[in-house]
Amino acid sequence: MEDTSFYARLRDNATLVNNTLRFLLTKSAIGGISGELKEALVYVLEAPGKRIRSVLALCCCELVSGRINHNAEIAAAAIEMVHTYSLVHDDLPAMDNDDFRRGQPTCHKAFDEATAILAGDALLTLAFEILAKEIDQSTIAVGLISELAEASGPAGMIAGQMADLRADKTTGNEEILEYIHTNKTAKMFRCAAAMGAICGGANQQQLSYLCEYGLKIGLGFQIADDILDVSASSGQLGKTAGKDERAGKATYPAVLGMKKSRQLAKKLADEAIAALAPFGEKADILRQLALALLKRTK
Amino acid sequence: MEDTSFYARLRDNATLVNNTLRFLLTKSAIGGISGELKEALVYVLEAPGKRIRSVLALCCCELVSGRINHNAEIAAAAIEMVHTYSLVHDDLPAMDNDDFRRGQPTCHKAFDEATAILAGDALLTLAFEILAKEIDQSTIAVGLISELAEASGPAGMIAGQMADLRADKTTGNEEILEYIHTNKTAKMFRCAAAMGAICGGANQQQLSYLCEYGLKIGLGFQIADDILDVSASSGQLGKTAGKDERAGKATYPAVLGMKKSRQLAKKLADEAIAALAPFGEKADILRQLALALLKRTK
Repeated sequence: MEDTSFYARLRDNATLVNNTLRFLLTKSAIGGISGELKEALVYVLEAPGKRIRSVLALCCCELVSGRINHNAEIAAAAIEMVHTYSLVHDDLPAMDNDDFRRGQPTCHKAFDEATAILAGDALLTLAFEILAKEIDQSTIAVGLISELAEASGPAGMIAGQMADLRADKTTGNEEILEYIHTNKTAKMFRCAAAMGAICGGANQQQLSYLCEYGLKIGLGFQIADDILDVSASSGQLGKTAGKDERAGKATYPAVLGMKKSRQLAKKLADEAIAALAPFGEKADILRQLALALLKRTK
Repeated sequence: MEDTSFYARLRDNATLVNNTLRFLLTKSAIGGISGELKEALVYVLEAPGKRIRSVLALCCCELVSGRINHNAEIAAAAIEMVHTYSLVHDDLPAMDNDDFRRGQPTCHKAFDEATAILAGDALLTLAFEILAKEIDQSTIAVGLISELAEASGPAGMIAGQMADLRADKTTGNEEILEYIHTNKTAKMFRCAAAMGAICGGANQQQLSYLCEYGLKIGLGFQIADDILDVSASSGQLGKTAGKDERAGKATYPAVLGMKKSRQLAKKLADEAIAALAPFGEKADILRQLALALLKRTK
């Protein structure tokens, strides 16, 4: 039986992220953004994303402090902006060349390539702008900006995307796959957990448990993503299915086979859950999240 | 007669920027950057840029505090990273489609388009990372990040580039040109002056004079750039000359003619110099800079 209260909480948190994003885009202190560029930003941010990374940040703040505070809302919006920028740029013809994302044409298809490049640049810049301007303590702001820049930068997500572009299933092995998925995806999950924890005032130990949890579910999430690319339809995914396989990409199913990939995803979820032990039952939503990511169908 | 001590000081400051960039790229706290991505970052950052924006930041710090401090060096490097990212992305085929920049093939020509997109993304992210990690006071770091994100973001440089892509000389008028040049170029000059001033501990009045100065020389700089596109050779410029005219771009010479463009650039330099009056002769280097930008041949 599906745990409806769990999914309802995820949905509520995703709604909070969407409302924060909408508020920030219209807020004059952030913006003065206008015209086609604003249309493109609204288009990509309003698309129905899963908001998993940003919801993770909100959950970690709540776990540590008992509630979702203003700083966590801003941090979640910044994470979503960076994640969305990465999708917009990754979908470009020179990169993964995708036409379909979050159930709608990709940004460069709905607008044009130049607009998509600039919209991605804008989202990345805005993420840091809102952290600098909207977080209510400068030491916290600086901590959040450090985490986000490190995870999404050239020693994180960008390194992962670069390696992903170069790898194919003939040269890919488990070590390369782990490098790609850790950098491209897991570090941003780890970062989301860390940012939420920092907003909640976590101590060093709490921060380190939640980072461990984030890294593990991030890696598991990407393996599940690889599996879904093989097993789900484009309609389910909201993006082109079967694309990795046709492109001869190095994915977990291509390198390890489906069975071993599923086992590995399960092992990572177990390890993520183990990292939550010190939090007791307060961390149940994160346990459910780890298991839900295994079972997801989109 | 050329003022050799003025040019020697500019060169010394540019060398300081280059050394800081080199140090930051190899520093392990920043990086763990490797492979082709690192090669591309080194390629674009080591290219012989004029470093005007970053040197402006150093000069403003020195004017206000009597010396160039550590924070100003970091701020200057961040400004140069953001400026370089903007060149790498603007040169892409989907944007201005340039093959030649700073005297060498553009990033997407020397590497490929995907690498150029990612290298640009990496530089933008790194700029914020170094400000968050290397500035020695979090309130100053947050102030610098706010300034840089606002100037380079969707209500600044990105808006300018977007408008520039859409404008041509048949539809361009003086108002549109001022919008483009203010956003695309002048706000980053203003930001460089502000960041330097903040690092030097400027008071509100000093900050406001230096912002005024930066905005005026930035606009003048871009007009001079338009004029050079018509009057200089590709060899002099280190980028393709005559390109704006052939592309039917909305430039100052195309819309106002050469004579009026030169007059306007001179007027802006005069206004910039007027804003420096409260600083007395300590600001002579900035006065010389305003005049030098008018006379530049590359």
